[in-house]
Formats: sequence, C-alpha cells, structure tokens
Amino acid sequence: MSLAIISPDRDITPWLEILKSKAGDIPLEIYPDIKHPEKVTAAMLWQHPKGSLKQFPNLKLICSMGAGVDHILGDDTIPEDIPITRIVDPKLTFSMTNYVIMGVLNFHRQITRYQINQKTHKWDMSNPEIPISVGVLGVGELGGDVLDKLSYMGIEVCGYGNSPKPDFKHPYYYGDQLEEFLSTCNVLICLLPLTPHTEGFLNLELFRKCSKGSYLINVARGKHLVEEDLVTALDEGLLSGALLDVFRQEPLPKDHPFWDQENITLTPHIASITNPKAAAPQIIENYHSLETGQPLVNRIDRKKGY
Amino acid sequence: MSLAIISPDRDITPWLEILKSKAGDIPLEIYPDIKHPEKVTAAMLWQHPKGSLKQFPNLKLICSMGAGVDHILGDDTIPEDIPITRIVDPKLTFSMTNYVIMGVLNFHRQITRYQINQKTHKWDMSNPEIPISVGVLGVGELGGDVLDKLSYMGIEVCGYGNSPKPDFKHPYYYGDQLEEFLSTCNVLICLLPLTPHTEGFLNLELFRKCSKGSYLINVARGKHLVEEDLVTALDEGLLSGALLDVFRQEPLPKDHPFWDQENITLTPHIASITNPKAAAPQIIENYHSLETGQPLVNRIDRKKGY
Repeated sequence: MSLAIISPDRDITPWLEILKSKAGDIPLEIYPDIKHPEKVTAAMLWQHPKGSLKQFPNLKLICSMGAGVDHILGDDTIPEDIPITRIVDPKLTFSMTNYVIMGVLNFHRQITRYQINQKTHKWDMSNPEIPISVGVLGVGELGGDVLDKLSYMGIEVCGYGNSPKPDFKHPYYYGDQLEEFLSTCNVLICLLPLTPHTEGFLNLELFRKCSKGSYLINVARGKHLVEEDLVTALDEGLLSGALLDVFRQEPLPKDHPFWDQENITLTPHIASITNPKAAAPQIIENYHSLETGQPLVNRIDRKKGY
Repeated sequence: MSLAIISPDRDITPWLEILKSKAGDIPLEIYPDIKHPEKVTAAMLWQHPKGSLKQFPNLKLICSMGAGVDHILGDDTIPEDIPITRIVDPKLTFSMTNYVIMGVLNFHRQITRYQINQKTHKWDMSNPEIPISVGVLGVGELGGDVLDKLSYMGIEVCGYGNSPKPDFKHPYYYGDQLEEFLSTCNVLICLLPLTPHTEGFLNLELFRKCSKGSYLINVARGKHLVEEDLVTALDEGLLSGALLDVFRQEPLPKDHPFWDQENITLTPHIASITNPKAAAPQIIENYHSLETGQPLVNRIDRKKGY
C-alpha cells in the first residue's frame, strides 16, 4: 500500500514535511515520478492531469487536497466507485468569511469612492452608507458561516440553495424561488459548489433578475461565472460592481478585460488557501481508515457533487 | 420654557421635522435667531460657538446632538452644575463597528496591495493574509461592540481603558498597562472619549511602543492624534499604515499632507453619523423629564468627561 501525491502546479514541500513528521510509515509516490503504481491504494490530488489515475489498478481512495472536488469529478476517467474525500478546515472558513465580509463592507461603506476623493483632495460627507441586504448562494460550511457572521453584525441576510432546509436559522430560498431570493438582496455572494448544474450559474439571465445595482462577490469557482455576461451586466448598470477571486483561467491572462474594468476589484485566488497543517492530518486519517476499514472523514456524495 | 437648537454648521431640517411631528408642543428657538433667551431652559447643541449659552439665564439642561460631548465640555463659559446628556443610538454603533471592521479586514487581507497589482496586471498569490491581533483603545458602548463583533469572527482582540473592569469579557488592560497592551496587538483602534487626559494620546511616544508595523484606525476625534507624529511614525516604519476618519481641522485643509500620504486612507468623518430619527426622541424625552423632575437618560459624568 502506498499514497500517491499528484499536484504538479503547487509546491508540495509543506505537505511532505507534515506527512513525513506525522506519518513517516506511509510509503509515498510523487507524481510524475511514480515507481510502483500497482502498490498505490490512495491518491491525494490538486489539479491533477486528467487520466493520470488510470495507472493505478488498485486505487481505493481519492483525497482532494482542498475544499473543492470539482477538479476530481471533472475527470471522467476515474471509476465511479472510488470514494472521494475533501478538506474541511476551520481556518479555510475563517479566511473565506473574512474576505467576503471585507468585500461586503467595502461596498456598503464605499471605500473606492473615498479613495478616489482622497486623490483629488475632495471632502464629501454625503450619503455615507449604501443600505445592504446580503444574499448568499450556497449555504454549506462556508456560506453558512458567512450568514452567521454577517447576521451577528446586524446585517440583513438570506441564503439560497438546492434543496429545502426546514430548520435553517436564516431566511432561506431554494430551487425555483431564485427570483424571489434575488429581489430581496443587493449584495450577491457566490459560494456554490461547482457541479454541472451550477456551472455558468452567474449569467446575464440571472443578472437581469437581480435588484438593480447589485454588487457581486464570487469566491467559489471561476466556472460559475459567464465572464462576458458580467462585463455586459456592469456596462448596462444591472450590477454596480464586483469583487472576484476566481476566474475561468488562472492566473488571469494578462490581456483579460477584467484587469482594467473600473468597477471590478480582483484578487488572485487568495480568499481562502488550504493550510497543509490542517489538511494533511485529515488525509493521513483517511489513509489509515482505509487500511483498517473505518469510515472516512469528509467523504463527498458523488451524486450531489460535493 | 423652551428648547434652543444651536448647530450652525449642520443642516437641522431633519431634526426640526421630527421635533415638530413628535413634540409640536415644545417651543423652539433656533440659533442665532433667539427671540426669548430668558425662556430657554434646555439647549441641544452640535459644535456651538463658544460662549453662546451665556445668553440663557435659566438654562437647566444641555443635550449633545451626537455621541460625543467634548464640544460642550471644551467651552468653559458653561456653568458646571448644568446636566449634560449625549445620544446613545444602536445605529451609531452599527455604523461605527462596520466601518472599523472594514478597516481591520482591509489591512488583514491587504486590499491596497491587490488594487496596485490589478493596475499592473500582476498575479501574486504569495502571503495572502497578514496575521492580526486587534487592540481597542476605549471600551465603552462603541469599543465594546467592536470587540464583540471581531471576537465573534474569530479574530484575536484586547481592550484598553482607564479603570479596572473585573468582569470584562475580553482580554483587558488599563492604566499603566498600556505598554503591555500595545505589545499584544498590531492593529490599534482609537475609540476613546476626548478628554483633557486623552487629547494627543496617539503620539510618537506611543507609536514607538507599538508592535513594529502596526496599523492605526482613528474613528474617535481628530484631537486624539498628534498629526505630525503620525507622519513621522509612518516614515520611520513604526506604523505600516492608517485609516483616519477624524481630523484636527474638518474639512481637512486642501493642502494637508495626509491627502497624499500613500499609506493613509482617509474618509470625511462618515464612520458613524448621528441619525436624527434615533437621536431626537432622546432629546425630547429628556426635555420632558426636566419639566417633570424625572431622571435624565444618557446623562454624562462631567468629571470623567463622558
């Protein structure tokens, strides 16, 4: 039995340090330099090359090295019966929530306007606050925490999801209540999982249903957004601005129109970064559970896609 | 008996509307056009001209039209035995806290750095979070709320005040523990009341005791800060930046060095603006209490200065 690490685009040094110190007994294989593919029973992945798991005939467990699993589910060469786990990390939630609240408050308190006024030495005290009501698309671990924290601050919130949630502690809409949901809020936060159903969810048709001048924050996945539709929505004044942390292509190409769009603030996918110190032990635990036949932690439901 | 309104620099129309609709029976005198000074028993003030209360021989109550009373206590022509009240408004607290949290998170998540990178189309994912520990100077109504909200978000906080508070629910320092307090935090928020003791509190000597590279947020009063000392502290790298909403002279003079200082973000005294709808009823209540001999709400302690 061994554990393969397939994460060609990221520096895995910090992961290796923790694996070696906390689980020195687990034999490791590091992609692309795999010596004994037939011994690999578990693989930990981040943005693996499609098809790269086909070389492991005895694979029994796939662990995402982050909160998302869309990079795994998007590879149809992976057999459907292999269980998949993801990382659940309170620090991920902490970072995500703080980033989102920053975005919400910068819109509410119009930081950009004051930055522009500062440049021209202009003292303008008028209308210091844009009234806000925040809608969160996706009310899982991350969306739920954003709702809790904003609501504790006294900010009006509501959530939207796939399925009914009778005991949800915030105003909640689901399924075909999307239009109603969109009409109650003027700040829209996307924290949806990426599934075939949610890809391209943020499109012109949806923007036309938003309260006029709504502000968009996308911290989920670049593929949730139809990027050209956002430019149209901003140009037509359907939306007043956006804070984006994720993009269809990352790093964002140098000539992408988002860079120079005045009402877009963009950050380079840093809202919430997996911390190997919190994440690696979850993978170690699942590796051992596989060996001993114990239940896996943070296993995803492949049908739901998250 | 009548109520005088002395607020020459602000538009008092919204105050008059509420006074007329909710207390049409109270005779009003509006400065500077006072017809019967001898009938004035109560005065509501914001930035009144010093000495302007001397004309009222029968004055028995002074109501600040905002949360602060330093503009009243700074006028030594006012007899010491006249009670003074201030405004306590949950909306004031809501706005102040949101503004402060915005400032804290913009430092923590380095929004300015990403704005600069966006201008040059630079994708830099390194070091996405500056670790923060927030210290709040002044733990009254406003400071206490900031501590609560930040702490609920999982951010490390501590408070500093004048006197011991044995049951305070956050880490707390007072009196000569200032140095210890400053060494525990790297974001410093000033929410002190302005008194002779706290004027100029934010000076070079204090900045030298701060953790190197601390970030300053002043939302209390301009006079808390020795403005030239802030420029020195930023130039010497003692502080890494500041968010300022209040200034010694407001509007900030066009040629003031703060406007062009890159590591200062400034806003035109808009962090928290008194809402006449919440404030006027408190003044009406106190006017009636004066007539009927009931205790006053939100009366300040002149010795403490708040």
